[in-house]
Amino acid sequence: MTLGDFEDPVSLQALELPAPRLDAPPSLAEICFDDVHTRASHALGKSYVDVVRGFRGRFEDAPDLVARPREEADVERLLEWCSNEGVAAIPFGGGTSVVGGVTPDVGPHYNGVVSIDLGGLDRVLEVDAVSRAARIQAGASGPGLEAQLGEHGLTLRHFPQSFELSTLGGWIATRAAGHFATLWTHIEDFVESVRAVTPIGLWESRRLPGSGAGVSPDRMLAGSEGTLGVITQAWVRVQPRPVHRSSESVRFTSFLAGAECVRAISQAGLHPSNCRLLDAGEARLTMAGDGSHALLVLGFESSDHPVQAPMTRALELCAEHGGAVSERSARSGDPVSSWREAFLGAPYLRDLLVAMGVLSETFETAITWERLPSFHDRVKAAAEQAAREVCGEGSRVFCRFTHIYPDGPAPYFTVLAPARRGEEIEQWWAIKRAVSDAILAEGGTITHHHAVGRDHRRWYDLQRPEPFAAAQRGAKAAVDPAGIMNPGVLIDPLR
Amino acid sequence: MTLGDFEDPVSLQALELPAPRLDAPPSLAEICFDDVHTRASHALGKSYVDVVRGFRGRFEDAPDLVARPREEADVERLLEWCSNEGVAAIPFGGGTSVVGGVTPDVGPHYNGVVSIDLGGLDRVLEVDAVSRAARIQAGASGPGLEAQLGEHGLTLRHFPQSFELSTLGGWIATRAAGHFATLWTHIEDFVESVRAVTPIGLWESRRLPGSGAGVSPDRMLAGSEGTLGVITQAWVRVQPRPVHRSSESVRFTSFLAGAECVRAISQAGLHPSNCRLLDAGEARLTMAGDGSHALLVLGFESSDHPVQAPMTRALELCAEHGGAVSERSARSGDPVSSWREAFLGAPYLRDLLVAMGVLSETFETAITWERLPSFHDRVKAAAEQAAREVCGEGSRVFCRFTHIYPDGPAPYFTVLAPARRGEEIEQWWAIKRAVSDAILAEGGTITHHHAVGRDHRRWYDLQRPEPFAAAQRGAKAAVDPAGIMNPGVLIDPLR
Repeated sequence: MTLGDFEDPVSLQALELPAPRLDAPPSLAEICFDDVHTRASHALGKSYVDVVRGFRGRFEDAPDLVARPREEADVERLLEWCSNEGVAAIPFGGGTSVVGGVTPDVGPHYNGVVSIDLGGLDRVLEVDAVSRAARIQAGASGPGLEAQLGEHGLTLRHFPQSFELSTLGGWIATRAAGHFATLWTHIEDFVESVRAVTPIGLWESRRLPGSGAGVSPDRMLAGSEGTLGVITQAWVRVQPRPVHRSSESVRFTSFLAGAECVRAISQAGLHPSNCRLLDAGEARLTMAGDGSHALLVLGFESSDHPVQAPMTRALELCAEHGGAVSERSARSGDPVSSWREAFLGAPYLRDLLVAMGVLSETFETAITWERLPSFHDRVKAAAEQAAREVCGEGSRVFCRFTHIYPDGPAPYFTVLAPARRGEEIEQWWAIKRAVSDAILAEGGTITHHHAVGRDHRRWYDLQRPEPFAAAQRGAKAAVDPAGIMNPGVLIDPLR
Repeated sequence: MTLGDFEDPVSLQALELPAPRLDAPPSLAEICFDDVHTRASHALGKSYVDVVRGFRGRFEDAPDLVARPREEADVERLLEWCSNEGVAAIPFGGGTSVVGGVTPDVGPHYNGVVSIDLGGLDRVLEVDAVSRAARIQAGASGPGLEAQLGEHGLTLRHFPQSFELSTLGGWIATRAAGHFATLWTHIEDFVESVRAVTPIGLWESRRLPGSGAGVSPDRMLAGSEGTLGVITQAWVRVQPRPVHRSSESVRFTSFLAGAECVRAISQAGLHPSNCRLLDAGEARLTMAGDGSHALLVLGFESSDHPVQAPMTRALELCAEHGGAVSERSARSGDPVSSWREAFLGAPYLRDLLVAMGVLSETFETAITWERLPSFHDRVKAAAEQAAREVCGEGSRVFCRFTHIYPDGPAPYFTVLAPARRGEEIEQWWAIKRAVSDAILAEGGTITHHHAVGRDHRRWYDLQRPEPFAAAQRGAKAAVDPAGIMNPGVLIDPLR
């Protein structure tokens, strides 16, 4: 790829934001802020276009106010004020949305926007070591809650790529996916109960290990993306750190040959904690391979018993499917570790890529196994074609599986292409549209774990059943009669 | 227990039903029936009070018509007619509700009731052996769908106690729990996509192995209990029959000692397919024990690999917790088989119990481990006290675990008591109220897998968060504007 000069972002001092349209009422003045830095840092998420906008100082959708609740009662007061004044309220956790989920772009019919930053509610409030569960405030970040749980010898083991900044409340609101490649792929699989402040009152479910009492109230908040209320805390299942671990990497001649093996492993009921298949390009990009072969990063873990038996069986299945276990050498390093470091480091590269003139976007989806080969080929071809048409030669498209189910994988496509300075946003949207159209046409979901936000609305609307959309609108109108909660996310603003 | 004479039920010929208030329109006349037998057999579910009512010929809530759709379009036509005419529509699968879920007791504001019997939609329509999934019509019963899947060497492995009569659509609508004691406890854990006819149109989700696109549409139908529409088919995950199995039974001196062991097994991540703990009375009742000890029925299964390793580890944990593996003898039989036969046979006993004058009821719930000891003791004491006060001496209360989670079990209480002829329904309600009050007061759920129906409403209303109830009402009003779908279940009738 031929790249342009290295670009510096606009400095904070040079920023010009629209004047705030709101004054906080006296009762909320202590927790509301309208300085440039605070407003600018709540104006965007962390998608490629967000980073581009940030570089260029384009903060036109900055919130009028940023509120930092100190306690749940502050959230209640905020929503009451917003409802009365027709002010949009946007729950803000770590601000790591890559789909416009926290962007204050709410349309012209609100009298202002308040971004509600939950960062002050970051405590593990209670640990139940008998039931292995913890009550944690929604604003606790990954490292923050893990440090507090660690004092009790426990861990949540939910490690999305945004782990270092994102929060428990954000994970639940967006159905974030985490560490485990099988069984407990999404945060809601760990949720015992959720507590949220809605405009009409407190929504708190009972703490239960399981239930069959009607529709699950927790499953109606999971994925609600801030449209029903502000999640303030949750009981989640935690566990001791694993003491038995086994990890291997296995080479395959092609991605789809590896996929057949992953299908066999997932359908065998072996439940690996890690089962990430990288295509040759992705393996090379993450320095886990040399680009000549697809790579399966396989891991088992347990806090109770040795895991050699399932690993042995999984490696048998790999051998049956033509896989070759990689040897570890001091020189090349351990492919498993290389992949893990690259995984956690990747989001931090986005700023650098923008500075260097590289357009980047990821598409994460899920599809059943029987459609995978054509799905993979067509979505990849659509991405390659769009990148070439929009950005010219030199683009790259990679694919990996992030999670697997007995009936299909969650493929994750990465697109890297040379951007034209000043045209990145239009270029990004052109690629986004083409690839998302292909994903929908081939039967996939517009998102497996990045959420819908504002950017995915067009495809989400095509994907969801229309009576379900009507049910969502009806539910929201009942819980949020003034239509203030994160307008434009999931459904059209109610005003 | 001193029992009365054996009572015969009212004969079909002697039945008197209220005259039907409805005539089917010509377009639906072919699929609508109003003969006495058809109406009577759709007037009640299968709870103790339903059986009592049936014995005594009390069919006052019989539906005016019973419709038997031959295809999905029939369901659409039925709901259109019901919406236009203000007629309540009650989806009817196997009719095995034990909570009044199919009882046409809809209040005075409807012009009649149609029970929609899905029995004609009983086919496995498609099998995808690659992804291991099948598209099955909602009216397929347990044995019916297993026989059809068996032709492909596959099984759903969902075996609720009502298995022989109940249907896929009923399971999904009520979040039925099945065979697996861990991991996939409820039917929704096997659901890939659901298709339902609502009064405003077809609600069909994409077939996906996983997704994070907003609130799950499938999770909003699972547990909707017929209040949003009629489920007509679903894609569900299926699997080959297990070829590796291991089962053991383990004795414990007390139920709570056994419970501590079950907690250790569930938190070890061993994932037994069966892990049913029976207290001494329950073990004796099911002829799996002699009444001197609690019994753990433990099983592992796999279609891929031997399961001796997890069984060995589970038995180590049993030994650490004071458990003794039962020896099998030709004379006493196998406790595991005894329990399985008693489990599947139990529902058929209900008629006999009524005939013999024995009041029976079961209470199934879930609770986190740290509250289990006091929960168990207080709920059991409340049941014993209520049975004694209501029915006098001679009652029995037993407990078992039906399913287990890392954070708690699903306890299942059985009450048997001598009934007074003619007062059974009032006696049943008095016991139901006392035990349900105790379950709610001690933090449990009013139902782990029997559903809410009409009978559990009082406690369900206490349990669910009020803003969630408002969201449900809003969702229903949007999808079912005439309020015809199963009125009185989950929420108050909309008219």
